Amino acid sequence: MSTIRSAIDDTLHAALMQKLGSDRLRLGNDIPESHAADAAGMAPCPPGLLILPRDTQEVSQALAICHAHGARIVVQGGMTGLTGGAHPQAGEVALSLERLAGIEEIDTLAGTLTARAGTKLQEIQEAAQAKGFFCGIDLGARGSCTIGGNIATNAGGNQVLRYGMARRNVLGLEAVLADGTVVTSLNKMLKNNAGYDWTQLFIGSEGTLGIVTRVVLGLHPAPRGVRSALLAFSRFEDVLTVLRRFDAALPGRMIVFEAMWREYLDTATGPGGLVPPFGTMPEIAILIEAAMGESMGEESGADPFTDTLAGFLEEGLIDDALVAQSEADRARFWSYREAVYEFRRIIDAGTNFDVSIPIARLDEAVARLRAGARAFGEETRLLVFGHVADSNIHISVSHPDHDAPMSEAIQAMVYDIVAALSGSVSAEHGIGMLKRGYLHKSRSDAEIALMRRIKQALDPHNMLNPGRVLAG
Amino acid sequence: MSTIRSAIDDTLHAALMQKLGSDRLRLGNDIPESHAADAAGMAPCPPGLLILPRDTQEVSQALAICHAHGARIVVQGGMTGLTGGAHPQAGEVALSLERLAGIEEIDTLAGTLTARAGTKLQEIQEAAQAKGFFCGIDLGARGSCTIGGNIATNAGGNQVLRYGMARRNVLGLEAVLADGTVVTSLNKMLKNNAGYDWTQLFIGSEGTLGIVTRVVLGLHPAPRGVRSALLAFSRFEDVLTVLRRFDAALPGRMIVFEAMWREYLDTATGPGGLVPPFGTMPEIAILIEAAMGESMGEESGADPFTDTLAGFLEEGLIDDALVAQSEADRARFWSYREAVYEFRRIIDAGTNFDVSIPIARLDEAVARLRAGARAFGEETRLLVFGHVADSNIHISVSHPDHDAPMSEAIQAMVYDIVAALSGSVSAEHGIGMLKRGYLHKSRSDAEIALMRRIKQALDPHNMLNPGRVLAG
Repeated sequence: MSTIRSAIDDTLHAALMQKLGSDRLRLGNDIPESHAADAAGMAPCPPGLLILPRDTQEVSQALAICHAHGARIVVQGGMTGLTGGAHPQAGEVALSLERLAGIEEIDTLAGTLTARAGTKLQEIQEAAQAKGFFCGIDLGARGSCTIGGNIATNAGGNQVLRYGMARRNVLGLEAVLADGTVVTSLNKMLKNNAGYDWTQLFIGSEGTLGIVTRVVLGLHPAPRGVRSALLAFSRFEDVLTVLRRFDAALPGRMIVFEAMWREYLDTATGPGGLVPPFGTMPEIAILIEAAMGESMGEESGADPFTDTLAGFLEEGLIDDALVAQSEADRARFWSYREAVYEFRRIIDAGTNFDVSIPIARLDEAVARLRAGARAFGEETRLLVFGHVADSNIHISVSHPDHDAPMSEAIQAMVYDIVAALSGSVSAEHGIGMLKRGYLHKSRSDAEIALMRRIKQALDPHNMLNPGRVLAG
Repeated sequence: MSTIRSAIDDTLHAALMQKLGSDRLRLGNDIPESHAADAAGMAPCPPGLLILPRDTQEVSQALAICHAHGARIVVQGGMTGLTGGAHPQAGEVALSLERLAGIEEIDTLAGTLTARAGTKLQEIQEAAQAKGFFCGIDLGARGSCTIGGNIATNAGGNQVLRYGMARRNVLGLEAVLADGTVVTSLNKMLKNNAGYDWTQLFIGSEGTLGIVTRVVLGLHPAPRGVRSALLAFSRFEDVLTVLRRFDAALPGRMIVFEAMWREYLDTATGPGGLVPPFGTMPEIAILIEAAMGESMGEESGADPFTDTLAGFLEEGLIDDALVAQSEADRARFWSYREAVYEFRRIIDAGTNFDVSIPIARLDEAVARLRAGARAFGEETRLLVFGHVADSNIHISVSHPDHDAPMSEAIQAMVYDIVAALSGSVSAEHGIGMLKRGYLHKSRSDAEIALMRRIKQALDPHNMLNPGRVLAG
C-alpha cells in the first residue's frame, strides 16, 4: 500500500484538498475495497487517492487540478465492467461518480429523463416506469451499474433489437474534458442538426475522451401485452427465417430473441439441474418475447402471437414451441437463459467472450468454435448463447486444467475465428484493458490511427483512463 | 469566369491530370451549371475545377494531391441541400460523388444494403423494396439527393419518429480524410463496441471532416397494412395526448405524424385550391400513418387503427377524423402536406426555416411566432407545419415587400424565439453556410470550441468544405 500511496504527489493532494475539502477525498486505507477492482477479474489494485465529486463543477475542478499536476485518472461508476476499464492501474487517481447521482427531471411531454451520471440504471428504470414510460437500456447488472458507465461503454443488453444500444437512447449529454472544460448539451429533441453532434464521441469511448456527468435519455412507451415463447430448432437457417418473418408479420413488436445452443442447454439441464424444456433436446432454443399492445386482439378472439408461431410450426421451421400462459411460465423460460450466471459455480473455470459475428455467418462460427474447442481435449466444455438478432453471441470455453496459458490459447482461437468471419472482438462489453491487444483483429491500422488522432485531440496528455481502448 | 479559373493553380491541375486523367476532370466552361449552386437559393458560383472520381481510391488520390497543393474543396452530391453546404465559394475546387454511384450488395440475411456515396436515395429505396425490405431514410428530394449527402447531413424526413434520422440507419461507413487517408468500417452488425465508433463523427458533419465514400445501411422489414387518417384538433395539448396515447396503445406502429397549423391549411385550401378537408377548418390538422402489420386483425373483424382513433373522438380529444378507405383517400390526405412544395409559386416570397422546439413548448412557439409575424404588418403570411413528434417544425414567413433586410429581420425574430425556448436552429437541414451565423443561438461557446477542436484534429488545413458549419 505504501508504494502506491507514495505515487500520489503531495502537492496534488493539497491542491485538491484546498478546492474540494476533505469530504470529497479519500486516501490510502480509507478507500473502500470496492474501488480497487471492477468485475473483469483482475488482481485488485487499490488507488492511492479517490475523488468523490458531488456535482459537475466539482468534477471540472478536480480534472483541472489533476490536469495541472499531470495526474492520471481512472474513472469509476458501478464497477460492473468486464474488460478492466474502471480497474485501477498503479499510480492512477480514482475519480468515482457515485455521489453525482440522482434523477433531475422526467419530462412527461417530451418523454425524456435527465439524470446524473452516477445514478443506478435500475433507479432510472423504476422512475420511468412510475411515470408510465420505459427505459430502453437494460442489462443484468442493472442494480449496480450506473447510467454514466452505460453510456461510456455504449452498453447493450437483452433489448437491443427493439431499443438499440445505449447510444440510441441518448438525446443529450454533459461531459467534462481532461482540462476541466464542461461541455453541456442536455438536448431533449429527436432532431437537432445544429453543428457536429459531439455527444456521439463520448458514447462508447470508455471514459478515455471525457467524463460524462449528466445525460438526457429518450424514454419509450411501456410495452404492453408482452408475450413469451420458447422455440426449438434443428437448423440455424430456420432461426434466421423465423427472426425475419416474425418481424415482417408483426413489425416493431419483438423485444427479445435470445439463442441457446445445444451444449448450453445440456449444461443448464445437466449440472445446472433445470428440467429439460422439450422432450428432445433441440440444436438451438430461442426465447422470444414480443409486446403485442393493448388486448384489442384478444377481445376479438385473435391471438396473432400464437397464430404466427403456429404458422411457423406448420411449415416445419420450428420443431416445437412453448407459449407462456402465465408469469410463472415466463419466469421458467428465462431461467434457462439466466442459468449462465450460476455456471461459474458448477462447471470448470473458463475463458468468456462477448463478440459479434455477422448474422449470416453465425452458423459457420459455431461450427468453427466447436472444432476449435475440441482441439483443447475431450473434457473441454464450449457454451454458445446470446442475443443473435443483433449479431452478438457470448462464448465460454472451460476445462478442468484451465490456466493462464490455456486462456491465452483459447483467446487466440476464438478471436481468430471472429476476425476470419469479419466479426467484432467486442459486441457490448467494450475494449477496456483486457481486449486492447485484440483490437487490431476487428479494426484496421487506419481506423486505430484515427482513434488515436481523436484521443490526441481531446486528451493530449493521455490523462483519462490511460491504456484503456488504446495501448498507450 | 476567367478570374475564377485563374484561382486554380496550374500545378494542381497538372498533378490531378497526371494521376486521374482528363476523363475525371472538368475545367471552366466545361463544368455543368448544376455544379454552381445547390438548392439554398444563393447566387451561382461556378467552380474553376471539377473532380469526378469513380471509386474510393480516386477520391483518396484527388484529396492527397489537393492536400499537397493547399487547395480548398467543396464536396457535392445531389445538390439538394438547403443551407449552402455544397454551394461553391470562389476559389474552391468542386469534388462530386456523382460517378461514385451504385449499390454494391444487399445482404438479405443481415438485412443490410451497401452502396457508394453517389447513389440516389430513391434507387436505394427501390432496391431494398425489390428484396422485401424497407429503407428507413425518406425525404422529398429522394429522386435527386444521394445517400452520401443524406449521411453527411444526417438527413431527417417524414419517418424519423419510426426509423430515426439517417444516423440511426447507418451500420458502417467508409470515409476519406483530408490528406487522402481511407478509413473503412463497412460493419453490418448492430453491436460493435470495438473501440471508438469513429463513423459517428462523419454523420452530420456536412463534409467538413472527411468525404463519405461508401455506406452500409441497416434495412427494415417492409411496413405492412399501412393505414392513414387526417385528424382535426382545436388544442395543441390534445395533439400531444393523442401522440403519446396512440403510441402507448399500438407501440411501434406509428410511422408518420405530420402537423399543419390553421394558416397553413388556409393557404393550401385558399390560394392552393385544395378542397377543405373538414366542414370547419381546424386549428391543427394531423396526418397520421401507422403500419398495422398483416391483416390478421381484419380477418377477425377487428380494426385497432380505427378503434383507437374512435376512442379519442369519443373522449373529445379529436374534433373530427377521416380514415382513408383507399389509396385515393391516402393520396388526398398527403396532398395537403405536399401542397407546400407549390406554395412558392402562389404566395409572396418569404423566408423559410427548419427548426426544432422541445415538443412541450411547441404551442408556445406558435403563439410567439404569430405575434412576431404580425409585427411585420397585416399582409405577413406565417405558415407552420412539420413533423412535430420529433420536435421539428418548418416555418415560412412571407410578405409582398419581402427583401433581404426584411429576411434578416425575420430570421432574427424566429431564431430568437427558438433560442428562448431552448430549440435548435437546425432540425434536419444542417448549418451549411446560411445558418453559420446562428449556430451560437443553439450551441454554447464551449460546444463550438469543441467542434473546432474536432475540425482541427481531422482537417488541420481547413481544406474540406471550409466555412461550412463553422466560420472559417
